[in-house]
Amino acid sequence: MSKLVIVGTVAFDAIETPFGKTDKILGGAATYISLAASHFNIDTSAVSVVGGDFPQEYLDLLSNKNIDISGIEIVKKGKTFFWSGKYHNDMNSRDTLATELNTLADFNPVVPEDYKDAEIVMLGNLHPIVQSSVLDQMTNKPKLVILDTMNFWMDCALDDLLNVIKRIDVITINDEEARQLTGEYSLVVAARKIHEMGPKYVVIKKGEHGALLFHNDHVFYAPALPLEEVFDPTGAGDTFAGGFAGYIAKTDDISFENLKNAVIYGSTLASFCVEKFGTERMQNLSSSEVHKRLLQFKQLTQFEIELK
Amino acid sequence: MSKLVIVGTVAFDAIETPFGKTDKILGGAATYISLAASHFNIDTSAVSVVGGDFPQEYLDLLSNKNIDISGIEIVKKGKTFFWSGKYHNDMNSRDTLATELNTLADFNPVVPEDYKDAEIVMLGNLHPIVQSSVLDQMTNKPKLVILDTMNFWMDCALDDLLNVIKRIDVITINDEEARQLTGEYSLVVAARKIHEMGPKYVVIKKGEHGALLFHNDHVFYAPALPLEEVFDPTGAGDTFAGGFAGYIAKTDDISFENLKNAVIYGSTLASFCVEKFGTERMQNLSSSEVHKRLLQFKQLTQFEIELK
Repeated sequence: MSKLVIVGTVAFDAIETPFGKTDKILGGAATYISLAASHFNIDTSAVSVVGGDFPQEYLDLLSNKNIDISGIEIVKKGKTFFWSGKYHNDMNSRDTLATELNTLADFNPVVPEDYKDAEIVMLGNLHPIVQSSVLDQMTNKPKLVILDTMNFWMDCALDDLLNVIKRIDVITINDEEARQLTGEYSLVVAARKIHEMGPKYVVIKKGEHGALLFHNDHVFYAPALPLEEVFDPTGAGDTFAGGFAGYIAKTDDISFENLKNAVIYGSTLASFCVEKFGTERMQNLSSSEVHKRLLQFKQLTQFEIELK
Repeated sequence: MSKLVIVGTVAFDAIETPFGKTDKILGGAATYISLAASHFNIDTSAVSVVGGDFPQEYLDLLSNKNIDISGIEIVKKGKTFFWSGKYHNDMNSRDTLATELNTLADFNPVVPEDYKDAEIVMLGNLHPIVQSSVLDQMTNKPKLVILDTMNFWMDCALDDLLNVIKRIDVITINDEEARQLTGEYSLVVAARKIHEMGPKYVVIKKGEHGALLFHNDHVFYAPALPLEEVFDPTGAGDTFAGGFAGYIAKTDDISFENLKNAVIYGSTLASFCVEKFGTERMQNLSSSEVHKRLLQFKQLTQFEIELK
């Protein structure tokens, strides 16, 4: 079992989907990643920043899942990062209605002493310089560094992004972002170009179409579970990353074969995340529910063709 | 081993993709389906119509693959169905530049005597009344009838389409068509509604994202093999259907478990089809190439998570 450090936003979200809308609720990449990783009962630390307006009950919610929150700085006079978005009818695209950085604008993450030797580091979507500063604080070279990012940083901070990408082992990115980062339409070619930028493993997330794991000439495909209804896609990508990182920390095995399993766990947890608004489904998720859905994933993908 | 009857177009295609363009080459649904099915060395009959302008060498090409072509009517004074299309840069969408029905306008398919008791019937994309007329000619109730169709018939002949859909066991349809046919966005819900229309099995083709097989509450997902380059997508859906039908005829097993394998074979053959223009790749495809790619499909999808 390895220790896991997660850096990312802890935030307020206000979400509108065809099924309804919310007031400000708990959100943020580090929140979703941590909640997903907490399923594995590992030593996890969430590193982030919030304002004085952030409710104690949200912090307690994370603590109660055994997530170390000593790395979540509370800026008493500041306000918590706020994002608001509205999904289109197909749920595959959304408009951002508001982004208020607030305390996030001056965020200097501080990794707790106990976690400076963590073997697994999950860099959630943030400015690439902030992501780099977390790596600078690690006293031992981590066994595996996973980075999530988005097109925004490709537009605004590409050099910084490329610098941090050089330092990581796994990148998780969606299909459009992989195409933007490389200028290649074929995801096979895009993954190869991203390998050349540094990461040994490239995970390309395709939303309802699942996720691809590339490692040199090897590729693995985990479909998304076909769902009757996607209620709210917010946090699905982060939940995927949290399940992926958490499973690796739990099993302490960074082989390609084991990373396949990590992708399946990430997909499994993400399939729950979208069933309710925000983090609601992830807050009350039992081991037996996860186990049952893993069986569904097996049935969904496994086949028996005799090949000599 | 079962006999397989295939009905569909045998045609001229002229194709333009970002990689180049062709003059009139061999095309048509029945052509692609037959070539894919011929991989299984089963008794296959292609039922279609062509004009006097159709080259003997194309007919020989099918014959040499052991496809019975006695059901391909040659209208000496007529012209062969012609389709011309141009693919956009993403290869996922295309414009039809020309459609000349020619002899297809008066096509009355005649199933050869030897094949009126065929156990497996594959109804390629055609007017649903023409598809129905093939079923009317079968002397024994087939074990499995598979139907492929497209949005055009939903727009122009919906009642006829619904009538033939009542009579079939498996429908293959793409995701947008499934949504159009049912008015449901969720493919899970759409598949359920299509079940209610008649078919026990619903195959939803998602192009580069693979294919889903639904059977009551069961679902199976076959990804498409991630490819460096899609050269020409023409015929990929028909090749999928031909591999699917051919494998079922070969194994003579219409269980859900075996239909999963049929989907994998369909996906495998379709992954070759798109590598060259038209039918070129399918004309020269060896068993060992297919075998090797099936292994790739296993590696792409199979994982080992211990679940008690």
